[in-house]
Amino acid sequence: MNNEIVELIRKAIDISDEEAKIVEDCIPVKIFKKGTILLREGQISKESYQNLSGLIRKYYIVDGNEITTNFYEEGTSIASFTSLHQKIPAKHYFECIEESRLAVLHVDKEIELIKKVPQYETLCRTSVEKDLGKQQDSLATYLIASPEQRYLNLLNEKPKLLNRVPLYYLASYIGVKPESLSRIRKRVMKR
Amino acid sequence: MNNEIVELIRKAIDISDEEAKIVEDCIPVKIFKKGTILLREGQISKESYQNLSGLIRKYYIVDGNEITTNFYEEGTSIASFTSLHQKIPAKHYFECIEESRLAVLHVDKEIELIKKVPQYETLCRTSVEKDLGKQQDSLATYLIASPEQRYLNLLNEKPKLLNRVPLYYLASYIGVKPESLSRIRKRVMKR
Repeated sequence: MNNEIVELIRKAIDISDEEAKIVEDCIPVKIFKKGTILLREGQISKESYQNLSGLIRKYYIVDGNEITTNFYEEGTSIASFTSLHQKIPAKHYFECIEESRLAVLHVDKEIELIKKVPQYETLCRTSVEKDLGKQQDSLATYLIASPEQRYLNLLNEKPKLLNRVPLYYLASYIGVKPESLSRIRKRVMKR
Repeated sequence: MNNEIVELIRKAIDISDEEAKIVEDCIPVKIFKKGTILLREGQISKESYQNLSGLIRKYYIVDGNEITTNFYEEGTSIASFTSLHQKIPAKHYFECIEESRLAVLHVDKEIELIKKVPQYETLCRTSVEKDLGKQQDSLATYLIASPEQRYLNLLNEKPKLLNRVPLYYLASYIGVKPESLSRIRKRVMKR
């Protein structure tokens, strides 16, 4: 099953069969049941993940309410970098909202992997740069777009998500109350 | 003057004197006048910058209005990753709002530098990971905090900025109208 990760990595960088074995050893693939909390507020994150199938939600608890700030679909990486690299407690949660198959990279194994397979670092860098680009764009979207525009962006960028996620998660992700999201959806569907 | 960049890099990674010369060659330091536009909407970004002194503003033009979404102070990196790496036109502007001394890394020179000084890639990766962490936190702040809380965060994280930047830039950065920011400031000062 883990060959999946080797194949994924080989799409981006050249690695020998010997190096492929190191990759398999360092990045195990695990299945997590729906509802599994991968990271809790207050914990220091020690792992990053590559989502092979399933769906992860990032949320904060603010005044007792869950505020969803991200969804990670298949093909995306999941990491809390501030916690992972500066060893400070996470302020948020990662939850599997579907059964998920994730490639798990422990922070110690990452160091080992980069030492043994140096070209893996190129993959890390380019992948993190891509994620940073996306994150920069997301932040800009919150600052420049109306809630309706953000909903339309979501429809456009992650169309499948709308059928997989409860409305109240989506509402907080867009930054509105569920009632407002219902109104936005009705307006959009009328067009 | 460029030794500054070598010194900065040597704080993070070991490089030989020969490698230091390559760094100096690949990352020139340039002075940009106040008002210089480093990147325009519609342009494909070809450079990233390290701010040695001065202040850069990122803004979008939406319905004819400038919306400021970031300020880059001394010690920060400035890059539009989606445009830089996917070669798609930028949707925003980078403007020097003070005279700024920037280390300039052209995208072609970056490739050359990583080839000639492989350990430079480690620096890139860790620095981009740190930036991604910050960006993740910023996005979360917009989703979970009130405008007043965002103003207080700004006071806390970038206290010097408030004296360097016009109120209307700050207001759009916080996501409110200038009048609302004035009210927030008065409320905060009363305490």
